[in-house]
Amino acid sequence: MTDNPVAPRTPRTPLTLLGTGAMGTALARAWLAAGHEVTIWNRTPARAEALAAEGAVVARSAAEAVAANRLVIVCLLDDASVGDALDGTALAGRDLVNLTTGTPGEGRTRAAWAEARGARFLDAGIMAVPPMIGVPDSGGYVLYSGSPELFEEHRDTLAVPAGPRYVGADPGFAALYDVALLSAMSGMFAGITHAFALIRPDDITPKDFAPLLADWLTAMAPAVHQSADQIQSGDYTRNVVSNLAMQVAGNATLLRTAGEQRVSPELLTPYMKLMERRLAQGHGEEDGTGMIELLALRANNDRP
Amino acid sequence: MTDNPVAPRTPRTPLTLLGTGAMGTALARAWLAAGHEVTIWNRTPARAEALAAEGAVVARSAAEAVAANRLVIVCLLDDASVGDALDGTALAGRDLVNLTTGTPGEGRTRAAWAEARGARFLDAGIMAVPPMIGVPDSGGYVLYSGSPELFEEHRDTLAVPAGPRYVGADPGFAALYDVALLSAMSGMFAGITHAFALIRPDDITPKDFAPLLADWLTAMAPAVHQSADQIQSGDYTRNVVSNLAMQVAGNATLLRTAGEQRVSPELLTPYMKLMERRLAQGHGEEDGTGMIELLALRANNDRP
Ligand SMILES: NC(=O)c1ccc[n+]([C@@H]2O[C@H](COP(=O)([O-])OP(=O)(O)OC[C@H]3O[C@@H](n4cnc5c(N)ncnc54)[C@H](OP(=O)(O)O)[C@@H]3O)[C@@H](O)[C@H]2O)c1
Ligand SMILES: NC(=O)c1ccc[n+]([C@@H]2O[C@H](COP(=O)([O-])OP(=O)(O)OC[C@H]3O[C@@H](n4cnc5c(N)ncnc54)[C@H](OP(=O)(O)O)[C@@H]3O)[C@@H](O)[C@H]2O)c1
Repeated sequence: MTDNPVAPRTPRTPLTLLGTGAMGTALARAWLAAGHEVTIWNRTPARAEALAAEGAVVARSAAEAVAANRLVIVCLLDDASVGDALDGTALAGRDLVNLTTGTPGEGRTRAAWAEARGARFLDAGIMAVPPMIGVPDSGGYVLYSGSPELFEEHRDTLAVPAGPRYVGADPGFAALYDVALLSAMSGMFAGITHAFALIRPDDITPKDFAPLLADWLTAMAPAVHQSADQIQSGDYTRNVVSNLAMQVAGNATLLRTAGEQRVSPELLTPYMKLMERRLAQGHGEEDGTGMIELLALRANNDRP
Repeated sequence: MTDNPVAPRTPRTPLTLLGTGAMGTALARAWLAAGHEVTIWNRTPARAEALAAEGAVVARSAAEAVAANRLVIVCLLDDASVGDALDGTALAGRDLVNLTTGTPGEGRTRAAWAEARGARFLDAGIMAVPPMIGVPDSGGYVLYSGSPELFEEHRDTLAVPAGPRYVGADPGFAALYDVALLSAMSGMFAGITHAFALIRPDDITPKDFAPLLADWLTAMAPAVHQSADQIQSGDYTRNVVSNLAMQVAGNATLLRTAGEQRVSPELLTPYMKLMERRLAQGHGEEDGTGMIELLALRANNDRP
């Protein structure tokens, strides 16, 4: 709250970034703009050149880049490329932050791998696209899980590209949240694709339809709170507004309309089939949430 | 704007409502509460009793109910039940408003059927559940299409249960918007179901996950504006942030995660397969929007 104009600014933590693809480049620019010293390395050196002109220090090898700073950020294509890039680098005493998208299992295995080499480790999932990076209030953020000490120590630095959200010490959790969010979005986009295919043949102007669609999906998204409540209570009939039996009846209208409009129902039918399976099991009074039981492939005897 | 305390209140239009199921009952209550005289009929008379006690006039037959008022609202199970209920009623000179969910084709056929019997006709799609009816600012609304004169004349009455939105003279449009919105929502809920199935085995508390999920879907829903713009321009490569090639690469992580978490990918795979088909056709630089081309079952030669 006090403001001392003669106090020196806290020095920004210098850092190393491996990978200057689309996302890595956006990250590097954000840290450079915030006054960090950034040492970069990219497998294809040409892709790092623009950043050199903008003030980044270019290392000749990944090993040299890792040696340059304690804080090492990795943003590569996938977990295999992380292994390739870090192979032969000296990680002891390093704080390794992996911004590469992966699975929960990859996050956990990579954490154990890094710890075995003497590094602290944070896995991450970037919930943003490059144009959102370094833009305050872009809506984008980054999920982190793994070493709580590493996260606390570097929180300010990690906050530079996008708001950081720490979701737990289990290094698999960042990826699990990330992939769960992306999977839900994939379903939403599938539904949107079907909707636009439906309206098209009748010359309803897509731009007239889009605001209704955005508003409708936004109004319906908070239904996830009710699902969460039902899952935690174990009671899928709690506060049901439109039960499975009604939903299955309503599906017929959706399918008939697809038929009339000559649109393939392939994006809708798997969910409808799942509803029918659950209904056939006698769960007509439930909300749709109960269908998660049918998606679980492992024996459920290990859970209540 | 002027307020004359001695002027009589505009008399509310008396109306007939056929169908007092869950939705019809909510509608009747909203109109009664707003001071309308409401004549009701329901196939199973017992389901109309509660409303009689609340001031509704109960007709002994659908014909008697239709004869009672010029404005006749129908809210029954489906289009077939509308035919059943109105069969043998005298519709000449009536204003028929059909709040029964149906397909665009059913709306058009029912409009022609009503007009042939001398009635004006509006078809509608209710974008609300019964607890939202009659609740100001509930977020619910009703789509209307068909006779513009009928809509203008009864706009105030139609506004009582939920905000009315007129979407065109084509009586099929209300149903088309309705079903397109419901179809998109179905996709979103499929994605949400997969997401909750994913996080469950790892004991991420659903209530901790739900706010992130609601925020994420809300943040991504406005992508529909970009899709609408791409469809209208005919250029699916316009303003692409994450192209189809990148999305297909990302799908592998979603599938591997489903595998690790022992969750069936059946709700995600049809959309992924569609992406792969579009990619295989050489559209890797496009946005996902281009996939609507693959869903269209009819020959496209009749469109530009
Ligand atoms: N772009 C987005 O919208 C977005 C959003 C959220 C998360 N992410 C995640 O961010 C990460 C990077 O994405 P991006 O968009 O920057 O991808 P990109 O533009 O394709 O860049 C990929 C990077 O990985 C490097 N790489 C690939 N294979 C390698 C290997 N075997 N060894 C060493 N380096 C290798 C590439 O080096 P070369 O230049 O030598 O090929 C390049 O630096 C991914 O995990 C992605 O899922 C991206
Ligand atoms: N409830 C919602 O959340 C909701 C939301 C949006 C739209 N809608 C739409 O609103 C309409 C009514 O839904 P609802 O929830 O009220 O359904 P509901 O509770 O099942 O009521 C159905 C109504 O239709 C009548 N009916 C069925 N078959 C008939 C026939 N052959 N002849 C005459 N009457 C018949 C029923 O009469 P009986 O009492 O004699 O069976 C009852 O009045 C549906 O089109 C639905 O899609 C409902």
